[in-house]
Amino acid sequence: MTIVPLALPQYHYDIVIEPDCLPHLGGALRERGLGKKSPKVLLVSHPFLLHHYGSKLVDSLTGAGFVVSTLSLPPGERFKTANSVQKIYDAAQAHHLERSSLMIALGGGVIGDMTGFAAATWLRGIDFVQVPTSLLSMVDASIGGKTGINHPKGKNLIGAFHQPRLVWIDPLVLQTLPGREFRAAMAEVIKYGVIWDAELFKLLEGTRRLDQLRYIAPETLQEILTRCAQAKATIVMEDEKEKGRRALLNFGHTIGHGIETASRYKINHGEAVAIGMVLASQIAQRMGLWTEDCHDRLLNLVHKAQLPTAIPPSVPMDAICQALGSDKKIEGGKLRFILPTQIGQATIVDDISPDLVKEILTIGYTKN
Amino acid sequence: MTIVPLALPQYHYDIVIEPDCLPHLGGALRERGLGKKSPKVLLVSHPFLLHHYGSKLVDSLTGAGFVVSTLSLPPGERFKTANSVQKIYDAAQAHHLERSSLMIALGGGVIGDMTGFAAATWLRGIDFVQVPTSLLSMVDASIGGKTGINHPKGKNLIGAFHQPRLVWIDPLVLQTLPGREFRAAMAEVIKYGVIWDAELFKLLEGTRRLDQLRYIAPETLQEILTRCAQAKATIVMEDEKEKGRRALLNFGHTIGHGIETASRYKINHGEAVAIGMVLASQIAQRMGLWTEDCHDRLLNLVHKAQLPTAIPPSVPMDAICQALGSDKKIEGGKLRFILPTQIGQATIVDDISPDLVKEILTIGYTKN
Repeated sequence: MTIVPLALPQYHYDIVIEPDCLPHLGGALRERGLGKKSPKVLLVSHPFLLHHYGSKLVDSLTGAGFVVSTLSLPPGERFKTANSVQKIYDAAQAHHLERSSLMIALGGGVIGDMTGFAAATWLRGIDFVQVPTSLLSMVDASIGGKTGINHPKGKNLIGAFHQPRLVWIDPLVLQTLPGREFRAAMAEVIKYGVIWDAELFKLLEGTRRLDQLRYIAPETLQEILTRCAQAKATIVMEDEKEKGRRALLNFGHTIGHGIETASRYKINHGEAVAIGMVLASQIAQRMGLWTEDCHDRLLNLVHKAQLPTAIPPSVPMDAICQALGSDKKIEGGKLRFILPTQIGQATIVDDISPDLVKEILTIGYTKN
Repeated sequence: MTIVPLALPQYHYDIVIEPDCLPHLGGALRERGLGKKSPKVLLVSHPFLLHHYGSKLVDSLTGAGFVVSTLSLPPGERFKTANSVQKIYDAAQAHHLERSSLMIALGGGVIGDMTGFAAATWLRGIDFVQVPTSLLSMVDASIGGKTGINHPKGKNLIGAFHQPRLVWIDPLVLQTLPGREFRAAMAEVIKYGVIWDAELFKLLEGTRRLDQLRYIAPETLQEILTRCAQAKATIVMEDEKEKGRRALLNFGHTIGHGIETASRYKINHGEAVAIGMVLASQIAQRMGLWTEDCHDRLLNLVHKAQLPTAIPPSVPMDAICQALGSDKKIEGGKLRFILPTQIGQATIVDDISPDLVKEILTIGYTKN
């Protein structure tokens, strides 16, 4: 078992990583005094996950004395909407959730973000717990308290900072994760290697394949999950509300979000971030911040994860530019990029010229 | 001019009360460094208020270098919905509001709560300013950072704590406030007198009539507004997130909210609170916490404000009880009441028996 603590002035919580920990969640909540005043829990998930893991989790919770009701939402980014959050509110109301009740998100980033946002805004904020089931959510979305939903015109435009009270990671659930989603999440894993943790980068370089779970030894997976959680937790502790260094986590995300939105979410988050990292890496190279060798090493990892490195021709460039314009990473009309400087380090650059971005986007359609 | 400071660990802001201060808002924002990084402002209001005060405010803002767009929403509690907030999001998106942009609420509690909630959740939180135009909002809703909207099944079930950066109160705008709303707000003014400020209570006792603005001298009004703001600010500073003493502000609100919901908002907030205070006062008397003399003095003020003291027969008792059951003031199934102990003091009682409440509700239909 690995426990990564995340300490903020107002909150302190653990990120627990342990194979087969799902059946122990109920006890862990009790140990931590969660839901002490009210035993009511709303478990939010989607049909597939509830089928596979629902009873395990519900048994554990009821065994620990909680009264659980379950809400099943349709899976997928296109359901990360105000409408889905409304369904969580309705369930919270029907279940008479109180200020000291708990919401639990069993799912990937979409379920986690929505449930977190509902918890942030139900009765002006109640506790919630993240049980991430996707690799992407385990290494990124479930940690750090960013919650939210999409606006029809842009991703994550609506949201709140609301920290979970516990992040409960069971690597075994990755066995049911579709291959495409596993690969996509590798983009974020690679990201931590580039911007923060050179050791992680080398660990990934030393792993033969990154495109499927079965090629990665359990102890390597545990180390990858731990290093990612540590990186994320450290950055969040430095800068909870993204006023400074937390923006480093957006490496690959400026253009990535643009591509994701412009593709109408046909290209998933991780794939878009992979392309975004490659293009940001090219911008860094152009600006003399980052060597060709580093760029090639990054490209090599992206290839090993079987992730795209070029923008598919089906995504029109003007749609990407338009999405960039309404992206919240713009301050005073300028484009903000996170650019790598060496393996394990990156910097925030606030005044990248739109012309350079367009040039890189144009090249971005050709295979690297 | 009165300035009441409100200092919290993370935020510090002023509540400014000054006749004819509307045309000076732009300069005040600049002085306080608000909107420094982005000149974009979204002004949210409703048609009537924009007609009377919109150009004054917009002129002041544009004169100070802000780029203002205006959103007009329909007035009234029944529009305090997710749908209205969606319209604010749409306007924020269309106007390309950035993290450092500003929202301004020109209106009563409904506009203020919704705009505050939109600001709390747009890009995970941007700054906002309250320009309250109703007496109710001046003395209560605009101060203290409670924001939110109604759920079809209950008031304010969805929301966030998000402090404004400035509260800008111009008592002159009360001249266009409908009489019914002025009277309703007096319920909250009386509330502060009961739970917090015996001097205020006496000031109200010394005022001949409390039912219309024209009977209240400008200097008395200024003192009422100041004392209410001070009471609210002090309580919020002690307990921002309502984990303890802030609950005192809910005097009259437990039953009040129930009546408001059960009447489908035909009885407005202040009227419902007035009835709620009278009934809570009766509960306090029953429990020997509060004297008959104090009860009569409270009743006298409520009468002077021409506010109801009994539940109208049109509001069925079972509907009130049902609304009480889904009210967020319930912890562990028990009913929480704020009960007065002497003029200027109150206490929080967590375990009022539902039987006593039903008994008081039954009596509550007869004229006091």
